[in-house]
Amino acid sequence: MSEQIGTGEMERDSRLQLITQGEWAGWSMWRSDAFEQRAGPFYEKFEGGEGITAFRAGQEHMNGGGFMHGGCLMTFADSALFTIARPAMEGSFGVTMNLSGDFLDSARVGEFVEARGQITRAAKSIVFVRGLVTADDRPVLSFTGIIKKVGRR
Amino acid sequence: MSEQIGTGEMERDSRLQLITQGEWAGWSMWRSDAFEQRAGPFYEKFEGGEGITAFRAGQEHMNGGGFMHGGCLMTFADSALFTIARPAMEGSFGVTMNLSGDFLDSARVGEFVEARGQITRAAKSIVFVRGLVTADDRPVLSFTGIIKKVGRR
Amino acid sequence: MSEQIGTGEMERDSRLQLITQGEWAGWSMWRSDAFEQRAGPFYEKFEGGEGITAFRAGQEHMNGGGFMHGGCLMTFADSALFTIARPAMEGSFGVTMNLSGDFLDSARVGEFVEARGQITRAAKSIVFVRGLVTADDRPVLSFTGIIKKVGRR
Amino acid sequence: MSEQIGTGEMERDSRLQLITQGEWAGWSMWRSDAFEQRAGPFYEKFEGGEGITAFRAGQEHMNGGGFMHGGCLMTFADSALFTIARPAMEGSFGVTMNLSGDFLDSARVGEFVEARGQITRAAKSIVFVRGLVTADDRPVLSFTGIIKKVGRR
Repeated sequence: MSEQIGTGEMERDSRLQLITQGEWAGWSMWRSDAFEQRAGPFYEKFEGGEGITAFRAGQEHMNGGGFMHGGCLMTFADSALFTIARPAMEGSFGVTMNLSGDFLDSARVGEFVEARGQITRAAKSIVFVRGLVTADDRPVLSFTGIIKKVGRR
Repeated sequence: MSEQIGTGEMERDSRLQLITQGEWAGWSMWRSDAFEQRAGPFYEKFEGGEGITAFRAGQEHMNGGGFMHGGCLMTFADSALFTIARPAMEGSFGVTMNLSGDFLDSARVGEFVEARGQITRAAKSIVFVRGLVTADDRPVLSFTGIIKKVGRR
Repeated sequence: MSEQIGTGEMERDSRLQLITQGEWAGWSMWRSDAFEQRAGPFYEKFEGGEGITAFRAGQEHMNGGGFMHGGCLMTFADSALFTIARPAMEGSFGVTMNLSGDFLDSARVGEFVEARGQITRAAKSIVFVRGLVTADDRPVLSFTGIIKKVGRR
Repeated sequence: MSEQIGTGEMERDSRLQLITQGEWAGWSMWRSDAFEQRAGPFYEKFEGGEGITAFRAGQEHMNGGGFMHGGCLMTFADSALFTIARPAMEGSFGVTMNLSGDFLDSARVGEFVEARGQITRAAKSIVFVRGLVTADDRPVLSFTGIIKKVGRR
């Protein structure tokens, strides 16, 4: 099954499970990543070619002070990095080379946490991305990342 | 109970549990952080005033490709940031303002993952840190971070 | 003399010289900064509250290979950081705490180099910014920066 | 003429001028980089395989407040990045992919500004570096950088 991404099409990865009911109806969820399952799960969807990643903040995402753990936000940003970069990956796998985040504000239990961004440059073997994570539309993390393409699926 | 940290002493936080047996005998573990418990747990100890953080890589820390998830490494780095900065925190709480990582290599299941670093500047309300995460002594993440002190314990 | 910035007004700093003729008519230029005069000069203006910084790439900005020196781009980004942050500075001086850049492409002699961005968070004593530098509208540097407010003018 | 770098030898680049007299006797200076000449000049030497970069802070490096301009420090860091990375470049040219700096303190006129660092990872086409800039031995900038190798000399 393929889906429209950017100006082209991409084969839907079988590890992506399309959710059809409940709060996440219309979103897809990755099932193969051990750490990400424990940290999230995180959901993604494409709107007009733009990759959006999201999850609902729960108690399990917080630190001792009742705010979202910085590592949770960075794990989410790492996931969002690949969703945003999808249109430029051209069927290749990728590894994160660099991930950097400015922590703007805290996210709290119950908030809708979402990441949107842009590919700032898609080179032959490197993809540069920047993005913003919001909690109930309030900016909480400003991030940049660099992905190195490694081989093809 | 107090412990010797840097050139002074610091009250041992009751949320730090000293481990007395097994692989982690002599290390301490934080018990209060929900997300960190799921991501780790992570262990810390001080050697000659230098804060060291560590954990043993397990299957639960990996991504779909069998390598340590970037978000797991950043969560660990965020934890290590505070351990390294401890001597400069002077009893204050802190929040991460910025965390940035260069991913040098992958960490694999079974490897001993450790973070060591330095406080590059301890200012009145800001602490700058840099560190290196190794897996079986092989560098896997080079990171920098900025902590803002917020109030006192 | 005051000017409309964002939703408020700000006293025009006397070190800002308004250019009235030639290519830079309508832009302002800083006259007080020794290093910036040698690296630039750089010009700024506000359009609808948004701070824009620019300069024309000359031979003096290039490196040995004929491309714009990375340090020149970072010097320009540091300048743009403060222009973008102006609406949040509220009459305070500021110092750069962190500046980070992804080099996307090269800028060449003769190109119009411009920086636009956003304040991602304006806190009481800290301002977070991100921006994009383009050369003839082509993205060349994606940057983030953190400014610490220090005292008042 | 070749010189001992790290565990191997490297042909001395003819654009590197060895200084034989005065304050910089024993150091080398790059002559080919237009912007760097205006920003610096910067000097380099190798001690036991470790690349060190330095310059003496002058009035021309300062900003309006009398402190070293952030862009000057980043230009110097960009230069130091390549000096530190030299042993891993293996005769290839390189371009900066990412440069990030934490500004720890100010450098003042007359101070001896020096950068030392390490290659955190030397991969086939990417070199990761981190370093510290000091002014009269006082840390002023903590930086990380990523270089992409591009072709051979």
